[in-house]
Amino acid sequence: MDQLLFWLVPAASVLALCFAWYFHRQMMKESEGTPQMVKIAAAVRKGAMSYLRQQYKIVGWVFLGLVILFSIMAYGFGVQNSWVPIAFLTGGFFSGLSGFLGMKTATYASARTANAARNSLNAGLRIAFRSGAVMGLVVVGLGLLDISFWYLLLNAVIPVDVMTPTHKLCIITTTMLTFGMGASTQALFARVGGGIYTKAADVGADLVGKVEAGIPEDDPRNPATIADNVGDNVGDVAGMGADLYESYCGSILATAALGAAAFIHSGDTLMQFKAVIAPMLIAAVGIILSIIGIFSVRTKENAGMKDLLNSLAFGTNLSSVLIVVATFLILWLLKLDNWVWISCSVVVGLVVGIVIGRSTEYYTSQSYRPTRKLSESGKTGPATVIISGIGLGMLSTAIPVIAVVVGIIASYLFASGFDFANVGLGLYGIGIAAVGMLSTLGITLATDAYGPIADNAGGNAEMSGLGEEVRKRTDALDSLGNTTAATGKGFAIGSAALTGLALLASYIEEIRIGLTRLGTTDIFVGGEAVSVQDATFFDFMHHYDVTLMNPKVLSGMFLGSMMAFLFCGLTMNAVGRAAAHMVDEVRRQFREIKGILTGEAEPDYERCVAISTKGAQREMVVPSLIAIIAPILTGLVFGVPGVLGLLIGGLSSGFVLAIFMANAGGAWDNAKKYVEEGNFGGKGSEVHKATVVGDTVGDPFKDTSGPSLNILIKLMSMVAIVMAGLTVAWSLF
Amino acid sequence: MDQLLFWLVPAASVLALCFAWYFHRQMMKESEGTPQMVKIAAAVRKGAMSYLRQQYKIVGWVFLGLVILFSIMAYGFGVQNSWVPIAFLTGGFFSGLSGFLGMKTATYASARTANAARNSLNAGLRIAFRSGAVMGLVVVGLGLLDISFWYLLLNAVIPVDVMTPTHKLCIITTTMLTFGMGASTQALFARVGGGIYTKAADVGADLVGKVEAGIPEDDPRNPATIADNVGDNVGDVAGMGADLYESYCGSILATAALGAAAFIHSGDTLMQFKAVIAPMLIAAVGIILSIIGIFSVRTKENAGMKDLLNSLAFGTNLSSVLIVVATFLILWLLKLDNWVWISCSVVVGLVVGIVIGRSTEYYTSQSYRPTRKLSESGKTGPATVIISGIGLGMLSTAIPVIAVVVGIIASYLFASGFDFANVGLGLYGIGIAAVGMLSTLGITLATDAYGPIADNAGGNAEMSGLGEEVRKRTDALDSLGNTTAATGKGFAIGSAALTGLALLASYIEEIRIGLTRLGTTDIFVGGEAVSVQDATFFDFMHHYDVTLMNPKVLSGMFLGSMMAFLFCGLTMNAVGRAAAHMVDEVRRQFREIKGILTGEAEPDYERCVAISTKGAQREMVVPSLIAIIAPILTGLVFGVPGVLGLLIGGLSSGFVLAIFMANAGGAWDNAKKYVEEGNFGGKGSEVHKATVVGDTVGDPFKDTSGPSLNILIKLMSMVAIVMAGLTVAWSLF
Repeated sequence: MDQLLFWLVPAASVLALCFAWYFHRQMMKESEGTPQMVKIAAAVRKGAMSYLRQQYKIVGWVFLGLVILFSIMAYGFGVQNSWVPIAFLTGGFFSGLSGFLGMKTATYASARTANAARNSLNAGLRIAFRSGAVMGLVVVGLGLLDISFWYLLLNAVIPVDVMTPTHKLCIITTTMLTFGMGASTQALFARVGGGIYTKAADVGADLVGKVEAGIPEDDPRNPATIADNVGDNVGDVAGMGADLYESYCGSILATAALGAAAFIHSGDTLMQFKAVIAPMLIAAVGIILSIIGIFSVRTKENAGMKDLLNSLAFGTNLSSVLIVVATFLILWLLKLDNWVWISCSVVVGLVVGIVIGRSTEYYTSQSYRPTRKLSESGKTGPATVIISGIGLGMLSTAIPVIAVVVGIIASYLFASGFDFANVGLGLYGIGIAAVGMLSTLGITLATDAYGPIADNAGGNAEMSGLGEEVRKRTDALDSLGNTTAATGKGFAIGSAALTGLALLASYIEEIRIGLTRLGTTDIFVGGEAVSVQDATFFDFMHHYDVTLMNPKVLSGMFLGSMMAFLFCGLTMNAVGRAAAHMVDEVRRQFREIKGILTGEAEPDYERCVAISTKGAQREMVVPSLIAIIAPILTGLVFGVPGVLGLLIGGLSSGFVLAIFMANAGGAWDNAKKYVEEGNFGGKGSEVHKATVVGDTVGDPFKDTSGPSLNILIKLMSMVAIVMAGLTVAWSLF
Repeated sequence: MDQLLFWLVPAASVLALCFAWYFHRQMMKESEGTPQMVKIAAAVRKGAMSYLRQQYKIVGWVFLGLVILFSIMAYGFGVQNSWVPIAFLTGGFFSGLSGFLGMKTATYASARTANAARNSLNAGLRIAFRSGAVMGLVVVGLGLLDISFWYLLLNAVIPVDVMTPTHKLCIITTTMLTFGMGASTQALFARVGGGIYTKAADVGADLVGKVEAGIPEDDPRNPATIADNVGDNVGDVAGMGADLYESYCGSILATAALGAAAFIHSGDTLMQFKAVIAPMLIAAVGIILSIIGIFSVRTKENAGMKDLLNSLAFGTNLSSVLIVVATFLILWLLKLDNWVWISCSVVVGLVVGIVIGRSTEYYTSQSYRPTRKLSESGKTGPATVIISGIGLGMLSTAIPVIAVVVGIIASYLFASGFDFANVGLGLYGIGIAAVGMLSTLGITLATDAYGPIADNAGGNAEMSGLGEEVRKRTDALDSLGNTTAATGKGFAIGSAALTGLALLASYIEEIRIGLTRLGTTDIFVGGEAVSVQDATFFDFMHHYDVTLMNPKVLSGMFLGSMMAFLFCGLTMNAVGRAAAHMVDEVRRQFREIKGILTGEAEPDYERCVAISTKGAQREMVVPSLIAIIAPILTGLVFGVPGVLGLLIGGLSSGFVLAIFMANAGGAWDNAKKYVEEGNFGGKGSEVHKATVVGDTVGDPFKDTSGPSLNILIKLMSMVAIVMAGLTVAWSLF
């Protein structure tokens, strides 16, 4: 029965991919509109694809280097599992593929959305949303496919006789984390590179076009406008796809590993197996519910904004409610021990995600007081807009952090049977709460991904001269997406924090495996020997003295906090530098190519595309490599306590910093929109100019540095886990 | 002999106060200049004093509330030492007094400095620097006076028979930490209130005066200009005085407590006594060396800028070099165990401070590349200035964090005899490194405090119409101060991190005392009972499970990181709101009082002073109270592990955030100055306008939120320590 249930996982993944293919085909049947629209869409597509090729090339080199390193460690020194190099590669490959497929769909969908929007708002929504759903379903489909594949493969090839049966599942699940590292590495490059690309183009286009030349957004006279639209695709679509692929797999893999670890001493292989497949099953059911949710998003022809919003909200809410019911059902069917309370942990995760999403909405939407106040601060110029925005962003960290803290404690207590000492199951509860948050990613990602498609459709409409009405409709779709996406973003941020915690436990499991591989049989706790196989989390904490009074732990924590800031600083500066090049180029074209501003001559779009591409490539390498090197180096210098300090320091600071940056950026964006809606003087006023400065500063906050932090947190943990064998070997050596 | 050595401490404190009085009298003998200068100085003094009165009134109410709370806890429930309420009061009183005396001197010195600058740069320097020295010496003098007084008092009144003799000194030193909490509370209000005051006035004056009306800084036509000058005094002088009093005492007290704790099991009361007085002795010798350093700052008449800089640098360097020699000498005289290596820990502290100072200088001075690049980013407008500044600030956290980490490990290893397991002495090493950094505070604070005096002198000169030449000289003094102050600021930030760590250990000691007071005799470590009296740091960590896998610890850490951001958000917003009121008022005066801009009518300065005063008072309460309440609440909900998590989370995030904010703010300030020196178009150019926006944003970064964070970190620890009895009682209850 239980073995049978597992097959639901690959089945759901194939189902997701089929529906993705179906939605893609449906979208492709629509008309791309006028020849001008087709031409622009082709230019954007070409730019996006050429960038992605370049990015994959560089990432390919990094992967090659890491695979060689892993191979030496695995085959040369035997400090690592022999499957690590290959698993790592597949994770990277599928993460990249998710972004690629999502982006390909998006670049085909934008002109079609613009064309449909010529008829009605509703028609535009349908195409954009279904195209976004392609991305959502591709991510979850490929994610579960990769997970099922590796689970089945490792199950078949790892011999039982080396260890007790309960250890086998531990080895399988921690090995699978390696492909999580591959996914994280790919995702970090995609987010950082894409983020730098899109913001360099955006900031450059805005600064010269909007501020200096006074031409509107997406105006075809602006040389950077194609690059800007390409940027939306490579950053907001391909980057986000790779990012969420990583989050999705990360949470499932970490929880599976915790499930295996929680039952390591019980000898109860059946219950262990159940705990391992439970998160996969929840995710599988989530896919089915997402598909139902996506189909439930339908409106009458000529529906107004409010109907559309309700319809979208209905779809996501339906999936969320159903997943609660389904979780209880599936865990009951599975007959998992303590299934009622573990289901409650899943509910906790969902609630935390919703609270974070609502809080994000409150702080960043122009429907509420904080962002309106922010717009008002523009009356006293750009400086007060920046000060107030930073203040707002910092304040906005309170609710999400408190929600996460309550979530940690509640999901831990529920899953552990209200016993703080039951660390294994408690942490499992935290992990499965993260899985709960992300289980309906298929639909929440659809509501997230259709925003950039609508945005691009708007760009296409503007450049093709389709007129005010169409542009208004695409703008409405875009802003609709911003509202519904808040919840999705809340889930992504919240799950990063919880998954980060779950990964800490996996690190300890990997240390256990590393010690075993090196022939260490005992660790010492308070002078007494405890067998490595039987040691609890507590025992490891005490053996390595991972307490808050150990200077190595404290040093690691300082370094972890620093990593979060350093990483943001590097990416912020990268955007600044790349944007400056873009500004120089746009200014040069305005100066040297006569007749651009009168529309008589065509600007050289490709030069701007090339500048963003080169800038992103050059700038993404250093921050990404630092994220990989820091945990390795910390492990070599400070050992296990230092690494754990680094991870926790990075997690706690990085989580708060990420919320701050995302919310400040979002609020600046909407504060500008609020002014553009005609408040405090409207477009062209001094207040508007001040809020444009805020929006420009917010761009790298919310689209480059902020979202990359989520990946940084997990990538550092993944690297630590994969390198645990080296850390252990080095410290014994 | 050792008892005799102790008397050096009160003696040095009296010496410091005598010299402070002497320098003050010398300064008062100078002429205040023209009647206009006298009048302006009087107005500034009046505004500053009236603000301080108001602030002390509010702080008085807070202190009253806390003293009542402490009294109930001490006399009613017996969960606290009976001396706590009184010690708390004296700390608050002396901290406030330091700020008050320093500010009083500064307000008398500014006109005199301006008047002397009419003759020569050198004459101006002498008055400003000697007046700054008053503040430096008052802080260290009052600090050591309070420390000696309480040490002698508690030694006399606490009976030995309740515990073993080694426990007595532990009780004395941890009780003395209470007056540290009083000092921290006062300091936080002073920094936050003063910071809001000064930046509301500064931002308000700049936004309307410089940007809108186009009149220069400190122009008498600007209604906010007196408020701006008052702000320099209440924020940069009184606030800084209270702040550094707190840092100075905090580091000495925390180290003394660690010294007592390190020898608690040895029964060696003599060595324990030596370890307790060692930090006091180093501080006492530091006072003498500071006075020597201050006197060594002398230049020939008609000395140029370079001579002055060299002279100032010579003074501080001389003190630093001498303190190294003196430390070895004094610890040898004391015959402290392991004196050579403990002296090395002190040297480590000094080196770390210097590295942080140099790094601050590199990132924020216009003599180096980062700030020049920041100026250059103004070519593309204010948005890129903000992006680059934030990037710069975030990058600049790397060197200080790495320096502190190296410092932690080195000072720990040295003092512990290269034995990681020797936690008590290791932490003592970290504490004494912080003492080393701050030992020559007498002179480093003088170089810090004379900056605002010179700044005010410049304001006075401008408003009295003394002409370009005098203004140039005071500007030169001001910028000279910025350079020499970098080291001082490095010491302050670095010592906050190290002291924060040392205070964690004191928290554990207080838990031990709390348990004893409640009659608990044993704690349980791995199932075995260990006597509370004999338990080591490790035992407490394990008993309370203060490991990185405990969800309470992790929750506390998230909350701690959030506290740092929340606190900054509140203070940033407070400045934004207060500044907006100021802007409205200045605009109203320009509009309603005819003839202000032509100089025919006098603006209503007092209204602006009143607005800043009210704004600061209203806005300072919430952030300060949150800092006090958070550790209490965390203790009640999550117990000891939660509190330690909170403190460490706050420390690691807060430290990094503080450096980020201070350096970003400093760099923006100097980037603007670099443009004003004639680069990238100079004053009035578009680049200049862009950098003015950066400077305005940087104001609350570097003068309100950033420096307050250092106090927040320590105040939270102090509150936790003082409330430890309650936490323990509650968790047993």
